Amino acid sequence: MEIKPGDLVLLLSSDGKTFLMRVKEGKVFGTHLGNVSLGDAIGKRYGEAIYSQMGKPFLLLEPTLEDKMMKVKRLTQIIYPKDAALILIKTGIQSGMRVIECGAGSGAFTIALANAVAPSGRVYTYDRREDFLENARRNVGDAGFSDFVDFKLREVAEGFDETEVDVVVIDLPSPWEGVPAASRAIRGGGRVSSLSPTYNQVEKTVESLKREGFVYIETIEVLVRGMLVRPNKTRPFERMVSHTGFLTFGRKVLIREWGAEEKEE
Amino acid sequence: MEIKPGDLVLLLSSDGKTFLMRVKEGKVFGTHLGNVSLGDAIGKRYGEAIYSQMGKPFLLLEPTLEDKMMKVKRLTQIIYPKDAALILIKTGIQSGMRVIECGAGSGAFTIALANAVAPSGRVYTYDRREDFLENARRNVGDAGFSDFVDFKLREVAEGFDETEVDVVVIDLPSPWEGVPAASRAIRGGGRVSSLSPTYNQVEKTVESLKREGFVYIETIEVLVRGMLVRPNKTRPFERMVSHTGFLTFGRKVLIREWGAEEKEE
Amino acid sequence: MEIKPGDLVLLLSSDGKTFLMRVKEGKVFGTHLGNVSLGDAIGKRYGEAIYSQMGKPFLLLEPTLEDKMMKVKRLTQIIYPKDAALILIKTGIQSGMRVIECGAGSGAFTIALANAVAPSGRVYTYDRREDFLENARRNVGDAGFSDFVDFKLREVAEGFDETEVDVVVIDLPSPWEGVPAASRAIRGGGRVSSLSPTYNQVEKTVESLKREGFVYIETIEVLVRGMLVRPNKTRPFERMVSHTGFLTFGRKVLIREWGAEEKEE
Amino acid sequence: MEIKPGDLVLLLSSDGKTFLMRVKEGKVFGTHLGNVSLGDAIGKRYGEAIYSQMGKPFLLLEPTLEDKMMKVKRLTQIIYPKDAALILIKTGIQSGMRVIECGAGSGAFTIALANAVAPSGRVYTYDRREDFLENARRNVGDAGFSDFVDFKLREVAEGFDETEVDVVVIDLPSPWEGVPAASRAIRGGGRVSSLSPTYNQVEKTVESLKREGFVYIETIEVLVRGMLVRPNKTRPFERMVSHTGFLTFGRKVLIREWGAEEKEE
Repeated sequence: MEIKPGDLVLLLSSDGKTFLMRVKEGKVFGTHLGNVSLGDAIGKRYGEAIYSQMGKPFLLLEPTLEDKMMKVKRLTQIIYPKDAALILIKTGIQSGMRVIECGAGSGAFTIALANAVAPSGRVYTYDRREDFLENARRNVGDAGFSDFVDFKLREVAEGFDETEVDVVVIDLPSPWEGVPAASRAIRGGGRVSSLSPTYNQVEKTVESLKREGFVYIETIEVLVRGMLVRPNKTRPFERMVSHTGFLTFGRKVLIREWGAEEKEE
Repeated sequence: MEIKPGDLVLLLSSDGKTFLMRVKEGKVFGTHLGNVSLGDAIGKRYGEAIYSQMGKPFLLLEPTLEDKMMKVKRLTQIIYPKDAALILIKTGIQSGMRVIECGAGSGAFTIALANAVAPSGRVYTYDRREDFLENARRNVGDAGFSDFVDFKLREVAEGFDETEVDVVVIDLPSPWEGVPAASRAIRGGGRVSSLSPTYNQVEKTVESLKREGFVYIETIEVLVRGMLVRPNKTRPFERMVSHTGFLTFGRKVLIREWGAEEKEE
Repeated sequence: MEIKPGDLVLLLSSDGKTFLMRVKEGKVFGTHLGNVSLGDAIGKRYGEAIYSQMGKPFLLLEPTLEDKMMKVKRLTQIIYPKDAALILIKTGIQSGMRVIECGAGSGAFTIALANAVAPSGRVYTYDRREDFLENARRNVGDAGFSDFVDFKLREVAEGFDETEVDVVVIDLPSPWEGVPAASRAIRGGGRVSSLSPTYNQVEKTVESLKREGFVYIETIEVLVRGMLVRPNKTRPFERMVSHTGFLTFGRKVLIREWGAEEKEE
Repeated sequence: MEIKPGDLVLLLSSDGKTFLMRVKEGKVFGTHLGNVSLGDAIGKRYGEAIYSQMGKPFLLLEPTLEDKMMKVKRLTQIIYPKDAALILIKTGIQSGMRVIECGAGSGAFTIALANAVAPSGRVYTYDRREDFLENARRNVGDAGFSDFVDFKLREVAEGFDETEVDVVVIDLPSPWEGVPAASRAIRGGGRVSSLSPTYNQVEKTVESLKREGFVYIETIEVLVRGMLVRPNKTRPFERMVSHTGFLTFGRKVLIREWGAEEKEE
C-alpha cells in the first residue's frame, strides 16, 4: 500500500512535533528542522520516513480520526476527541445513519460524524455564522469527508430541513434553543446529545429535554489523564485538562404519557 | 420503520431498568413489573411502548453500541464503553479495516470493533480459553455482528495468522507477551492498543513496544463522572468508577534507526 | 506512656474493622469476633493488643483527628476529613484563634476546629435544630473537646454573638443567608469558608460574598483517590467518592472601594 | 489589632497578584504597579490597604498557612498545601507533638508541621544537603517558626537522634530507605507518612512498611479542582494540576505476631 499523491500523511519529527499534510508532487513546507518536500513521500509506505533538506527524518504516519480532528484550522473551540468518542458510542452513531449537527463550529466533530456514518450515511451540519461554516467546510474537505456532509447556513430557531434522523448533536451557547427543533427532527428511539461547558447550560438543557419528552437522560463529563511511563519511575503527568464540557444524552419517545420516576444516582 | 421479528430492542421500565431483547413472536420474559410479550413489539416503532400483563409500560428503545456492550453475558471483566470509545478514536478504526483483538474476553469490545469495521472490514479475535471464546461468539451473535468476526482459539505465543492488519488491540494479563506478534501482524503506520489495570503492566508493555520499534507511544486513563441534574440543585454524583484500566497506544514503524527523543510531558 | 482509664483507643481487628472507644474498667463491648473487655487496655501501650474472649487480637491504636471525625454518631451528613483538611489549611485556623461554625451538624468538623484552636482558642458553633446541637455536643464531648466549644441554638438570620473572630465556616443549605452575619462577625483580613454540594449554592454564595466585600474568593473541590498497592500489581481502587461538596473561600476587607479585576483562571 | 513592625502581611494587588512581606519601617519593594513602602502598613489593620507611589492599592491580608507554604523560596519541589493538609489530618499531628521530617526540602511542609505542633511541640527536620537545609532554615525563620524546629544535617542511613516521636514524615527519593529509621523512632501507635511521585516508589515503600510491622497502611492521592464561578456561567477551570504525589500512611505496632488479612478495597 504505497502513498500516492492526494493521500493524507501525519509527519512526526524526531522531537515529537506532528504535521498533517496532503501529499503533492512539488509541495514543500518549512519546519523548525528544515524544509520538507512532500513529493518524497510518493511511493513510500506509512511507517517509513522522508528527510528535510537538513537531513532530519520525518516519519510518515497514517492520520487517525483523532489526528484529523485535532489538526483542523480553528475559528472556534472544538469538540475534543475524548468527548467526540463518548458521544459516538453513547448515541450509537454508525455507518449508514443520518445525523444533524448544530452548529458546525470549526468542523472537527463534523469530521468524526462523517467518518462514522460513511459511506452510506449523511451528516447535515448547521451554523448561523457564514465564516464558521466556510471554515468548517474547508476543514471537512481537507480531511477528505466532503462527500458525506451538507453545510447549511441557518439560525437554529428556523428549525432543520430533515426529519426522521437518527441522531442530533447540539453544540450551541444556548443548547436548549435547539431542543424543540431536534425533537421534531429525530425519529422515535433516536438520540440527542448536547455538549456545553457550564452547569447552568446543562440544567436548562435537561429541563428542555424533559419538556420535549426525551427519556433516559444522562449527563457526564469525560476526563483523560496522561501517564508518564518510564522504567521504574512511572507516574501521572503533572498537569491535565480539567474540563472541556459536560455531555448530555437523551432518547426520543413517541408517546407523551410516559412519566418515569426520577432516579437519583 | 416498524419493529420486525429479529430486531433488537432495549426495553426501559418506568423505574429505569433496561432489558436488551430480540423480538420474537410468542417470546415472553418475566420482570419485576410482570410478564412482557415481545411479540407485542412487532409493528410498533422505536419510541413507543408495550405493556406487561400487569399493565406496566416498557418503552421500546433502539439499542446503542453502548447498550450492546454493557448487556453481554460476562465470563470476564469487559472493556467498558468509555475505554472502547477512546481506543476506537485514537487508533482510527473505521469501516473497511482489518483488526486483530487478543483476547476476546466476553466479546464486548469485539462488538464495538465489528460495529466500527462493518460492513466491509473484518475482526479477528483470539482467545486461549475455549469457554471464553464460545461465550464471546454467542454475545457477538446476539448483538448481530457474527458476519464480521472470526474467532480463533490460540495461545498468543503462537502468533496471529493475519498480516498487514490496520490495528491490533491487546487485552491480556501479560500484554507485553502479545507485542512481538502484534508487531509482525501490523502494517507500517498501523496502530496497537493495550488495556491493563495495573501500572506494572503498563510499564512492561511500553518497554516492549519501544523494543519492537513502535513510536508515538502514549498512555492515558479515562474517567467518566456522572452528574445529577435537577432544577436548582445540580451536582456531580456522589460515587463514581475510579479505575478500569490504563490505555496504551503506539504506531508501527518500518525503519529501525528511528531514535526519537524522550518526551516528558 | 501507658493507657489510662478515660483514654480514647481505636481498636483494629485482624479483619480491618475499627472501633473508637473510651477505656473504662469493667466496660465490655461485643464485636463480630467476640466480646472485648476495655479494662484490659489499662496499663498497655498504644501499638499493643488486647484479646476478645474468643482469643482474637484487637490492636490498641491512638485515634487521629480523622478517626475522631469519622466515628461521630451521625444525624446529618458530615464534613469529611478531606474537605476539613483543606478548609483548615486554606483559612489558616490555628492554636489560639476564635472561630464560628454555622451549623454544627453532627459535630465532626466542630471536633476538627476545636483540635486546631486548642488549647487557648475557642469555637462557637451554631445550629437551629436542638436535636442536632445535642448530638453534636455529645460527639464533641466523646472526642474530648468540650472545653473548647460553645454550642448555641439559633437561626442564622438572628446573627452571631461574637465579633472580631478570625474565621467563620458556613455549612448551611442556603449558605448565602449566613454571609451577612459572617461579614459582621469577622475581623479585617479574617477568612470565611462555605461548603455546599450543588453548584447552584456555590453561585449564590459567591455572589453574596462579593456583595459583602469579601475578596480573594476561590472555589475548589477535593477528590481523594485510593490506591491498591501490591507487589507487581498496583493500581487505583476501582471505585471512589466522586463528590461531597464544593469549598468556597474569601477574605474580609475593611474598605469598600476595592474593585479588583475579575480573574478568569 | 493593628499591624506592627515585624508582622507578616500578604499584599494583594488589584490584578490578583500576591506578595508575602514582613513589615518594616523604611522598607520599599518594587512591583509591576509601582513601589510600595511597607512602613505604610504600620498602624493599619488587616483588611485595609496601602498604596504604591503610582496610587495603586495593595490590600493588607493576613497570611494563612497556605500562603506561608506557597511563598517559600524553592530550591526543591515542595509538598503542596493539599497534600500537607491530608498528611496533617490523617496522621493526627497536633499541638504538643514531637515530629520528625526527613528531608527538609525547602521547608514548606516544615512550616506546616511547626504551625501544627506549636507552641509546646517540636519538629526535627533532617536533610543530607547543607544548601537545602540552610534554605529551609531561612524559609522557616521568615515564616516565624524558628522556635519550634531543629535542623539536622544527616544522611537518612545514619538514623534519627529522637525516639518515641509521635509521627515521622518521609519525603525522600528512596522513601523505603527511611522506613527502618522511622520505625525505630516512632512510639507505639505513632504514625508514619511518605509522599512520593511515582507508583514504583509507593510499591517499595509499602513493602518496607509491612516488613517493619506497620499496620493500617493506606495510599491515596489528592486532587484539587478549581471552579470558575460567575453568575449563570459556572464551570470547572479548564486546566488543573493532575499529580503531585501519592501519600502513604501507616501506624506503628509494638507486637510482631500481628498478621492482618489483606484488604483489597
